[in-house]
Amino acid sequence: MNLIVDVGNTYVKFAVFNDADLIYKLSFKLNAFKNQYKSLKKDFPKLKKAIISSVGHLTIEQIELIKADLNVIELTSALKFPFKNTYQTPETLGVDRIALVCASVNQFSNKNVLIIDAGTCITYDFVTVENHYLGGAISPGLRLRYLSLNNLTANLPLLETKQPQKLIGDSTESSIHSGVVYGVIKEIDGVIDQYQRDYSDLTVILTGGDSKFLSNQLKNTIFAKSNFLLDGLNFILEYNSK
Amino acid sequence: MNLIVDVGNTYVKFAVFNDADLIYKLSFKLNAFKNQYKSLKKDFPKLKKAIISSVGHLTIEQIELIKADLNVIELTSALKFPFKNTYQTPETLGVDRIALVCASVNQFSNKNVLIIDAGTCITYDFVTVENHYLGGAISPGLRLRYLSLNNLTANLPLLETKQPQKLIGDSTESSIHSGVVYGVIKEIDGVIDQYQRDYSDLTVILTGGDSKFLSNQLKNTIFAKSNFLLDGLNFILEYNSK
Repeated sequence: MNLIVDVGNTYVKFAVFNDADLIYKLSFKLNAFKNQYKSLKKDFPKLKKAIISSVGHLTIEQIELIKADLNVIELTSALKFPFKNTYQTPETLGVDRIALVCASVNQFSNKNVLIIDAGTCITYDFVTVENHYLGGAISPGLRLRYLSLNNLTANLPLLETKQPQKLIGDSTESSIHSGVVYGVIKEIDGVIDQYQRDYSDLTVILTGGDSKFLSNQLKNTIFAKSNFLLDGLNFILEYNSK
Repeated sequence: MNLIVDVGNTYVKFAVFNDADLIYKLSFKLNAFKNQYKSLKKDFPKLKKAIISSVGHLTIEQIELIKADLNVIELTSALKFPFKNTYQTPETLGVDRIALVCASVNQFSNKNVLIIDAGTCITYDFVTVENHYLGGAISPGLRLRYLSLNNLTANLPLLETKQPQKLIGDSTESSIHSGVVYGVIKEIDGVIDQYQRDYSDLTVILTGGDSKFLSNQLKNTIFAKSNFLLDGLNFILEYNSK
């Protein structure tokens, strides 16, 4: 059994895989790390290997805690991956984006694939039919947009994410909901349209924390895959354990 | 002669109108207010009236400085405007958005008009052919998006605004430029498309500090009007001085 530790900007995720099957998933805030890990280890005594993917801040103590029990791989750009990386600065390529590309190569190896991960940031990653990773884009996610309107301007309120009732907001709140939510939807649909013009036979994957909220609002056809990143991390762990 | 004082989130603008003609324009940071005003007053001794529009922070002392010399109107939602406002919370409607609607009614009174102001925020405002203002949307502007990626995430750098070379960024920097700049462009084009589906004979105005950077990248036809807000403020000053 494999443990996946995915440390994002806000939350930590634990996932347990039995071979290629995801059998358990938990999301929690970083300060609960030690307790959550001890409890998980008790529930899954058969855990043998782990992979840690972190775009946030994990302490050495937290990493050592897992290393005391399991064979641990830390995800960096120095590992082996099943794709050709043409990124100019592979050392700065976010490890979460590497994991998404691995999941894509594993599941859709004969397609041009655009992976859209809608979380704190929205990342776009493109992999060709030859399994060449070309790069993509990074833009602010839904929450970042709400936060930036409040944090970085003089007068706008901080709102919870909410589906707008209509395109034309008739109050400050409904104007912000329309601008943020429809802005993200129009951006994603517009970017997909552009890739479809440039690349034939395109498969689009939508994943990340906001994928459920966004998926049925897009005009383009996409595959919503909520565990795509975790699948990719489990694949990397196996690929580098042989 | 009229003085227009437009206080935004970052900069103050002074504009001088001779009747409907803009004859002088100056942009500066808020802390230079007193010196810039004294110098302006010397250069334009014929100034009689002023309007102050502020979405940022102007002190009472700064306002009193102008009131000592000129007849001053402060822009609030309580003034007279040449349009029917169906906004549910008119007291929270940003004064800059009111000024844009006035400019639209003054210059395009027989059209359905979508006004897009691309500055710190991107505001969308819609006015019908009957001069009814229905509302719109507010989303983060180009700089807010760059800032939010740096301020509110763990690992991303703060970049200057720059035109991306291609859709697929192959480094962290080029990925951010693609995500932010093409994200804004796809959002604006997508929102215009939606309004065009909902309203026939639509005129689209693009204004604000980023309008020059964005205007020739949009697929939709728009009128770029860099002084639209100032024109609207001058119109309001005259409309409320009679």
